[in-house]
Amino acid sequence: MASISTRKKKILNDPVYGFITIPSDFIFDLIEHPWFQRLRRICQLGLSSMVYSGAIHTRFQHTLGAMHLMAKSIDVLRSKGVAIADDEAEGLICAILLHDIGHGPFSHTLEHSLVTGIHHEDVSDILMHKLNIEFNGRLQLAIDIFNDVYPRRFLHQLVSSQLDMDRMDYLRRDTFFTGVSEGHIGSERIIKMLAVQDDRLVVEAKGIYSIEKFIIARRLMYWQVYLHKTVLAAEFMLMQALRRAVFLTQQGHELFASPALSVFLKGNYNREDFIARTDLIEAFAALDDFDVLGAIKVWQQYPDTVLQKLCLGLVNRRLFKIVLQSEPIGAAIKKQKEEELLGLQGIDKDNLSYFLLEGSVDNRAYHIGEDKIGILYKDGTVRDLPEAADLIDFKAISREIKKYYLAFYH
Amino acid sequence: MASISTRKKKILNDPVYGFITIPSDFIFDLIEHPWFQRLRRICQLGLSSMVYSGAIHTRFQHTLGAMHLMAKSIDVLRSKGVAIADDEAEGLICAILLHDIGHGPFSHTLEHSLVTGIHHEDVSDILMHKLNIEFNGRLQLAIDIFNDVYPRRFLHQLVSSQLDMDRMDYLRRDTFFTGVSEGHIGSERIIKMLAVQDDRLVVEAKGIYSIEKFIIARRLMYWQVYLHKTVLAAEFMLMQALRRAVFLTQQGHELFASPALSVFLKGNYNREDFIARTDLIEAFAALDDFDVLGAIKVWQQYPDTVLQKLCLGLVNRRLFKIVLQSEPIGAAIKKQKEEELLGLQGIDKDNLSYFLLEGSVDNRAYHIGEDKIGILYKDGTVRDLPEAADLIDFKAISREIKKYYLAFYH
Amino acid sequence: MASISTRKKKILNDPVYGFITIPSDFIFDLIEHPWFQRLRRICQLGLSSMVYSGAIHTRFQHTLGAMHLMAKSIDVLRSKGVAIADDEAEGLICAILLHDIGHGPFSHTLEHSLVTGIHHEDVSDILMHKLNIEFNGRLQLAIDIFNDVYPRRFLHQLVSSQLDMDRMDYLRRDTFFTGVSEGHIGSERIIKMLAVQDDRLVVEAKGIYSIEKFIIARRLMYWQVYLHKTVLAAEFMLMQALRRAVFLTQQGHELFASPALSVFLKGNYNREDFIARTDLIEAFAALDDFDVLGAIKVWQQYPDTVLQKLCLGLVNRRLFKIVLQSEPIGAAIKKQKEEELLGLQGIDKDNLSYFLLEGSVDNRAYHIGEDKIGILYKDGTVRDLPEAADLIDFKAISREIKKYYLAFYH
Amino acid sequence: MASISTRKKKILNDPVYGFITIPSDFIFDLIEHPWFQRLRRICQLGLSSMVYSGAIHTRFQHTLGAMHLMAKSIDVLRSKGVAIADDEAEGLICAILLHDIGHGPFSHTLEHSLVTGIHHEDVSDILMHKLNIEFNGRLQLAIDIFNDVYPRRFLHQLVSSQLDMDRMDYLRRDTFFTGVSEGHIGSERIIKMLAVQDDRLVVEAKGIYSIEKFIIARRLMYWQVYLHKTVLAAEFMLMQALRRAVFLTQQGHELFASPALSVFLKGNYNREDFIARTDLIEAFAALDDFDVLGAIKVWQQYPDTVLQKLCLGLVNRRLFKIVLQSEPIGAAIKKQKEEELLGLQGIDKDNLSYFLLEGSVDNRAYHIGEDKIGILYKDGTVRDLPEAADLIDFKAISREIKKYYLAFYH
Repeated sequence: MASISTRKKKILNDPVYGFITIPSDFIFDLIEHPWFQRLRRICQLGLSSMVYSGAIHTRFQHTLGAMHLMAKSIDVLRSKGVAIADDEAEGLICAILLHDIGHGPFSHTLEHSLVTGIHHEDVSDILMHKLNIEFNGRLQLAIDIFNDVYPRRFLHQLVSSQLDMDRMDYLRRDTFFTGVSEGHIGSERIIKMLAVQDDRLVVEAKGIYSIEKFIIARRLMYWQVYLHKTVLAAEFMLMQALRRAVFLTQQGHELFASPALSVFLKGNYNREDFIARTDLIEAFAALDDFDVLGAIKVWQQYPDTVLQKLCLGLVNRRLFKIVLQSEPIGAAIKKQKEEELLGLQGIDKDNLSYFLLEGSVDNRAYHIGEDKIGILYKDGTVRDLPEAADLIDFKAISREIKKYYLAFYH
Repeated sequence: MASISTRKKKILNDPVYGFITIPSDFIFDLIEHPWFQRLRRICQLGLSSMVYSGAIHTRFQHTLGAMHLMAKSIDVLRSKGVAIADDEAEGLICAILLHDIGHGPFSHTLEHSLVTGIHHEDVSDILMHKLNIEFNGRLQLAIDIFNDVYPRRFLHQLVSSQLDMDRMDYLRRDTFFTGVSEGHIGSERIIKMLAVQDDRLVVEAKGIYSIEKFIIARRLMYWQVYLHKTVLAAEFMLMQALRRAVFLTQQGHELFASPALSVFLKGNYNREDFIARTDLIEAFAALDDFDVLGAIKVWQQYPDTVLQKLCLGLVNRRLFKIVLQSEPIGAAIKKQKEEELLGLQGIDKDNLSYFLLEGSVDNRAYHIGEDKIGILYKDGTVRDLPEAADLIDFKAISREIKKYYLAFYH
Repeated sequence: MASISTRKKKILNDPVYGFITIPSDFIFDLIEHPWFQRLRRICQLGLSSMVYSGAIHTRFQHTLGAMHLMAKSIDVLRSKGVAIADDEAEGLICAILLHDIGHGPFSHTLEHSLVTGIHHEDVSDILMHKLNIEFNGRLQLAIDIFNDVYPRRFLHQLVSSQLDMDRMDYLRRDTFFTGVSEGHIGSERIIKMLAVQDDRLVVEAKGIYSIEKFIIARRLMYWQVYLHKTVLAAEFMLMQALRRAVFLTQQGHELFASPALSVFLKGNYNREDFIARTDLIEAFAALDDFDVLGAIKVWQQYPDTVLQKLCLGLVNRRLFKIVLQSEPIGAAIKKQKEEELLGLQGIDKDNLSYFLLEGSVDNRAYHIGEDKIGILYKDGTVRDLPEAADLIDFKAISREIKKYYLAFYH
Repeated sequence: MASISTRKKKILNDPVYGFITIPSDFIFDLIEHPWFQRLRRICQLGLSSMVYSGAIHTRFQHTLGAMHLMAKSIDVLRSKGVAIADDEAEGLICAILLHDIGHGPFSHTLEHSLVTGIHHEDVSDILMHKLNIEFNGRLQLAIDIFNDVYPRRFLHQLVSSQLDMDRMDYLRRDTFFTGVSEGHIGSERIIKMLAVQDDRLVVEAKGIYSIEKFIIARRLMYWQVYLHKTVLAAEFMLMQALRRAVFLTQQGHELFASPALSVFLKGNYNREDFIARTDLIEAFAALDDFDVLGAIKVWQQYPDTVLQKLCLGLVNRRLFKIVLQSEPIGAAIKKQKEEELLGLQGIDKDNLSYFLLEGSVDNRAYHIGEDKIGILYKDGTVRDLPEAADLIDFKAISREIKKYYLAFYH
């Protein structure tokens, strides 16, 4: 009976798309799961709100947005005669909902400081399997699609590829909340142009300009938002604060920390530990922005100069300065900064590495050679994007851009 | 020299208005103050994101938005020949920036649970005076405008009245982030129509429909967002959790808490205490959403049935159910719910009040009789809105709407 | 075969909704019909662009927008278990597409000057029947729905009622193109809340605030746009220019006119004439803004003082002045204006009526008593909006607002 | 007295920017001039509405939008210490208002059919000088800026360059009305980043991504909108219809035409004629979309097969088919189409050229070598965009894209 089966059919307000419909009771239950609700407490863009104060949207919102676009894509493909069975459709919805389930707070930062023994992909893998058991195997098809072992491979491409619903949502959403209009993409138009040819997700030729724009927008967002120098500075600072907290804890200090955070301050664990010990995965699944930033706030007062300096800087937005440039950092400037820092109270050779960081970041807008975007012409032929594009020179655009940084306390 | 005086003239991206300009170094320094930066960590709408997942915008964003509108209003009024001296303009900017400085996290909830001895207005007052000393008296004019003791009274009305920049921003911003288009107002148009007549802030007659729309929008937002039944349920649940935590602490329990939160779990303080003890105001000014929700998360495991039930519900979004109606709650239904609750494990007569709440909420869209909105006609006459409006019956609209609720654990 | 049956399945860009899909070949052919394409050349808001320069959107765009919303509504209702057969769905789409087919350019103005013998509803009726014959009877169901003789009456309500797709689109669209944000409605939300109970179109109770907002928005748009005093002035001026052109033509003057316009300058025809004479309906169906304004432009030079004055005013935006007020126009002011006008070169007692107009306009936001909007509660009961609304006093809002005008050349 | 000097200070609603302020009485009078009001009746994008039905915005709206952005730019530059005197500011406002004054309806189409003896730039020149006389020389400075003979050359760049207010508005506005989100640019951000260095208009380095996006957006809009194949087809058809009408008229036929259109059907005039004969420039200044499309509608019935076919096609949207490709059109396909056409009733060798067109269109997104965009770094150095850009390969992007077409009746 309709009224029972849609008992939990909910409509959510979403500032980006207007409304998002939750398609079934089962999906509703999955979203209600504590591991999924945890994403409400994890900002999509980490510390980007230090620069773009509106960018505090969460992974929860993003994931629901990607689900919404997935439902639209399924409708579009079906209307073009692509057969997608109901269980495949549910698999797609679940797979995209779960794609970020393994992310911790400030994900990349944590992987370089607090939880270095395991990648978020592995955590995802473990959590998905546990959820699958909890939901009596109903997530198996989603997991197969996610891991690209399901025979119909275009389904995986909807979840993870250069045209996946993850990107379609995050570019739209990040643009919306940062207010950086340069990143705006016509995700609705691209989705209307999706098609499947020879089990491959492709885009109809008349959508080619939208795709070219999408590639450019992604590149611009990388440098204007995701790798913005001040955002990098904040992340580096957080990374060092957590590294120091781990160091101090393992030296015997008793730092303020939630129980979940405490687990990871005290020990480092690898993939096998996470598989073997239920308490570890549960501790991880309890971590969110509140544990991390809540501790950083308290550590401002902790009697360790290094930790205190870093936490005071983070909380009060006196962030590292950063040089970000196309050429490698010269030895002279590095030397000069070292000397300046060593002249500051509380900084010495032993702890200098917390205050001076060197490295590089890079991004490529379009990956030639792997996972090509196919453009479908009216005669049924498919050409790869770099050959098909007539406005953008994709050889130029797919060139990796690498920048070198020197970040330092001041 | 221009380049020095505007050294810190910053342009911020804002998703609502596009760009916000920080007008001077002094204002920049004020915004950089830790007490102001704290507003980055306080959600404007508290727990509304339980219903509207996009509504996680902060008091920081709102306050900068209100500053932006204030700058626009000053421009508009000056262009109409209203003299506003530079120090008055700075006073207006500072006054609107500081208007929310005394708010704690989940402000109204906390005032009914954790910090019951003092109102946020009093905290504002104390913080403003301390800031004024810190900034060598430069905030005095702002404080005078804020407290309505400055002779030119229309300046105060820009900061606090039925047409103030606070409302102009929060309706726009709350609408934007919730996605509830019903609340959308033409704040830009209203500001263009502002004028001053006989030291009173008025609106030109051709803007009257915008004002009528603004009043209606505010009323709709109250019931659709601010007093949404699920939002109320979440707030009541948080209120009871904090009340329980205070009770347990004062019974000798040692609950997990940040140092700042700990201060208020241990004792209740009144206005005089806050004035006399610097440590209290500093503890208050350190409190934000991270202290409160960070603790709630940990308390899910605390071995007290009451606290545990409430915190588990809040974190995992199993909120109180709530009946919200125009008529008072009948005794029968209350009796019935009491009996149901007493049948649950861990609930008894002594702790029932944590799980069953009764009361009323109300709002009025337009307050007749106090602080009237004046409409300015071309012949120079001013009529009060209720008489001037020709579309909306303001006697009807200004009628208070009161709803009665019964909220209960289930 | 899918590729054949969707040969003409087109996606159109629409600035309001993003994309509009044309659902089938048949609908595509209907839209391609010259009588429908003619709507591309008829502005939705007539002379409103004299005040709102962006408001030059056409009846063509509006009608496609209403079709788009109709398709959404059908989807929503079907997803709630309301059975709508495929031919009924096509009937709904056709009915809404055809709802404006009988409108001429500057519709209401023409009915008071050039084509006074027949209403646009009658023209619609005649055109629909001719189209039905041309399309071999496939429009019969649409016509039955349109005329409310189809048994399932909620279908008619989707086409024509206080909640119809016509209004849902025009409020959104007129708001978009005028830039008058006061009229913005959440049409998407309202549509999501539509339901059918006892063969009646109703709105789920949780959408009640959206409905209240919709009613208010419509009222505001009436007075801010549709009955804006300068728009009225322009329309009155056009009405008099056409009235004068008819008068002159029937006196034997040879005025510049397209063949279609010429037909109506030379004679006035009633409903029976239109039914009997194919040439009349074809002339009418050839009329658009280009015939009318193209002639007005040329008539600026015609050697008749009355026609010249009126056309010069219209083209160069020196419009009638207008007094618009809640009280009837006083005899004194009318007398005074008469005297002023009679003092102008070329104006005398005989032609004064072209330069001085008196009358009244009115609107009601919600019509109590006829075609009530029903609100559906969770328990299955339906209450009419005036009783259900708790924020707006609908007795006040449904009161007719009438304004009196005196418009005059100057 | 303020109330007198701002007597005509008007605020206009604009759907793109919200509100546009007319800065002074003088500017108001200029806008009220019939030659300027004429732009209300000329669509900015000509026949693009055949594809993008929302794209019926006018040159009037565009010009006011560009004026609005010019006022913003003046504010921004002054706030950065660039001295712009009041008369220079008025000159800028007038120059941008007048930049399109010489455009006729369907401008490029007409220059290839009806009015081939003179360019719209020359018409502009003549009209500006006549207006300058009418306004007692007050437009002289605007004309000097426009013609780039005023010493401060950055003023000219605001009016006409790769960063001018014309482009800033038309990309925003065309994107808005077509609904093609690919063209969206952050014009507000770019304007905030404008600066002047060594009398040259430059962009601050932190705005570089916005500029790169702007260049790309312009390129995409060219091919997705301005040179869209169906738009080209419609323009070619109109061009041929007008060419035929001229031919017929000069053969002695009496075609329906407004007096102004009639002038240009009867004779072709060159620049000298326009300067010498006031009646010619007045006829040109009376031409708008209504003259041209009004005639096309009537000519559908004219007993000349060629004219009839072309006009029926235009009015009823049965446009030329068009092949548009990167390679030159092959002789074989051209031959084949010729034969097909000659087989149609009414088409023969003599009139074939009206039904089969061949040629090429091109665009370049960024012009290297002329009028470079300068990027200003914090150290005061300026680098040209192609060298400064780090995301886009500007050598690739500035490459001309040329496409060959074959358009034909069918």
